[in-house]
Amino acid sequence: MDLMQYLQTTQKKVDENIERAFGGERRELGKASTHLLRAGGKRLRPAVVMLAAEAVRQGSSDQVMPAALALELTHSFTLIHDDIMDGDSFRRGVPTVHTKWDEPTAILAGDVLYARAFEFLCKVEGPGNAKVKAIGMLAAACVDICNGQHMDMSFETREDVTVPEYLEMVSKKTGVLYAASAGIGCILAGGSEAQTEALYKYGMYTGMAFQIQDDLIDIMTTSDKSGKDRASDIREGKKTLITLKAREKGLDLSEYRRDLSMDEINELVKTLDRIGVIRDVREAALELVKKGNDLISMLPDSEARHLLIDIGDYFVTRGY
Amino acid sequence: MDLMQYLQTTQKKVDENIERAFGGERRELGKASTHLLRAGGKRLRPAVVMLAAEAVRQGSSDQVMPAALALELTHSFTLIHDDIMDGDSFRRGVPTVHTKWDEPTAILAGDVLYARAFEFLCKVEGPGNAKVKAIGMLAAACVDICNGQHMDMSFETREDVTVPEYLEMVSKKTGVLYAASAGIGCILAGGSEAQTEALYKYGMYTGMAFQIQDDLIDIMTTSDKSGKDRASDIREGKKTLITLKAREKGLDLSEYRRDLSMDEINELVKTLDRIGVIRDVREAALELVKKGNDLISMLPDSEARHLLIDIGDYFVTRGY
Repeated sequence: MDLMQYLQTTQKKVDENIERAFGGERRELGKASTHLLRAGGKRLRPAVVMLAAEAVRQGSSDQVMPAALALELTHSFTLIHDDIMDGDSFRRGVPTVHTKWDEPTAILAGDVLYARAFEFLCKVEGPGNAKVKAIGMLAAACVDICNGQHMDMSFETREDVTVPEYLEMVSKKTGVLYAASAGIGCILAGGSEAQTEALYKYGMYTGMAFQIQDDLIDIMTTSDKSGKDRASDIREGKKTLITLKAREKGLDLSEYRRDLSMDEINELVKTLDRIGVIRDVREAALELVKKGNDLISMLPDSEARHLLIDIGDYFVTRGY
Repeated sequence: MDLMQYLQTTQKKVDENIERAFGGERRELGKASTHLLRAGGKRLRPAVVMLAAEAVRQGSSDQVMPAALALELTHSFTLIHDDIMDGDSFRRGVPTVHTKWDEPTAILAGDVLYARAFEFLCKVEGPGNAKVKAIGMLAAACVDICNGQHMDMSFETREDVTVPEYLEMVSKKTGVLYAASAGIGCILAGGSEAQTEALYKYGMYTGMAFQIQDDLIDIMTTSDKSGKDRASDIREGKKTLITLKAREKGLDLSEYRRDLSMDEINELVKTLDRIGVIRDVREAALELVKKGNDLISMLPDSEARHLLIDIGDYFVTRGY
């Protein structure tokens, strides 16, 4: 099976499970909490959970599906709260939760999903101790995600953010949830400690690469394709590897912290390309993916391991 | 040991554990997330966790201390988010988190504590399956709390809220966390299913009574004593058993939905007392406590069981 087939199959299974679990929501808060979750998404974290499980225990990964859902729910919860903080008005082509409802409902909607994620993890079939370990890993990841988001916000008012600081922020904001996806899939499938550590780090590096690619997509891809406001990072003064590398090369992006026309964005992309920023950022992402892929070479050779390697490569080549 | 001694001893232990775990926070988000937690509080939910554990397994309850902390953290997380939604500016005599920091930080501060609560539950010594059951109970409680808070907010724009609707809201917003406190203490101490059910329901009823008493305190107790804005429920148009019983007796409190002077509040309390609202509300609380106490008569006779009964009585007699 090639990666795209695998991702499509997983996406379909995840979507079906989400519909089964949440399709009947009639309370307003239930609808608000599953609004983004049911608006689609590539279900990449669930795929990583399933593949990690398959990579350490050849065969079906159906048993870890509730964990795969738990990771998607956690991701969706963070999006709901982040959208409030960032004041973003649409995502996945639909209005964000605080826009369609209101802020208090969006805060609660995120909180509901958060709890549901832990409920799903509790439901996985398997030994209690492995589940507790997985739950602890998810909880620790959530703490890191909050710290990452807080760093990200605090960077907006700083012009002296360094690349190491940016990488720490990205490891927490995005890397750790992929790390937990791979780690939890491994733990619940009975993987060894060494396998769990390798997969956790693999997830961390590929997740960081994913975020760097996301930063590129933010500026390169049109809104109708990405479903997000184009160049919102630049307009909001977010610090990304793009803005940091641009500054290194003497281009100050803080003057673009305002409404931007399509022409201005296109012109900016041309400049970033010309002075080598786009190339440098792409290379940083590729390097992270390579580090991740090297780590999982310790796993037994299997289709799942190959697909995990493909997923890293896909993360940094996707256009949206 | 009498109840006040027991509560003081538990409070001291909980405070020490909180200081040990969080006293060294240096990141701004760490400080924000533990701001309310470290501002004091009676630590009633931890006491219920410990007493429930002692009631089913005679002897020390030190083993469940991390669970007791988990329940206090969960409570503190809900306060941080509720304060944002309700726009309250001080609590426990200190500025609320979104007032001292800002809304985005307060959202994240709550989210951090939420995760930490699950981390603490994972740390309890004991069999994995019991922990998973306890974690599932806490997660389900969190879902209910969100639904309760959402009902509470939606009541503000409705003048036809019924007493059963109010009781459902209170069971979710407040009852369920006391229910989970008693249930989790029991599960982790190796209690039987029947004991867990009895203690869970005991916690539910006494927790509901606690909230009804809180509604009374909101209007009866001065701010310097309670640490909260006096009569905020009335000013914000919240529906409480007081406002519903008043409406039954022909007194419409919606005209008090505005800034109120101390004299106006005192006058209002006098009226509520004269027409029998205060008495009716007190009786409803007492009845719930009695139901809770009857349920735990199935537990073996012990000091802990007596203290659980005392705690219910204390909930509805306390002045703040």
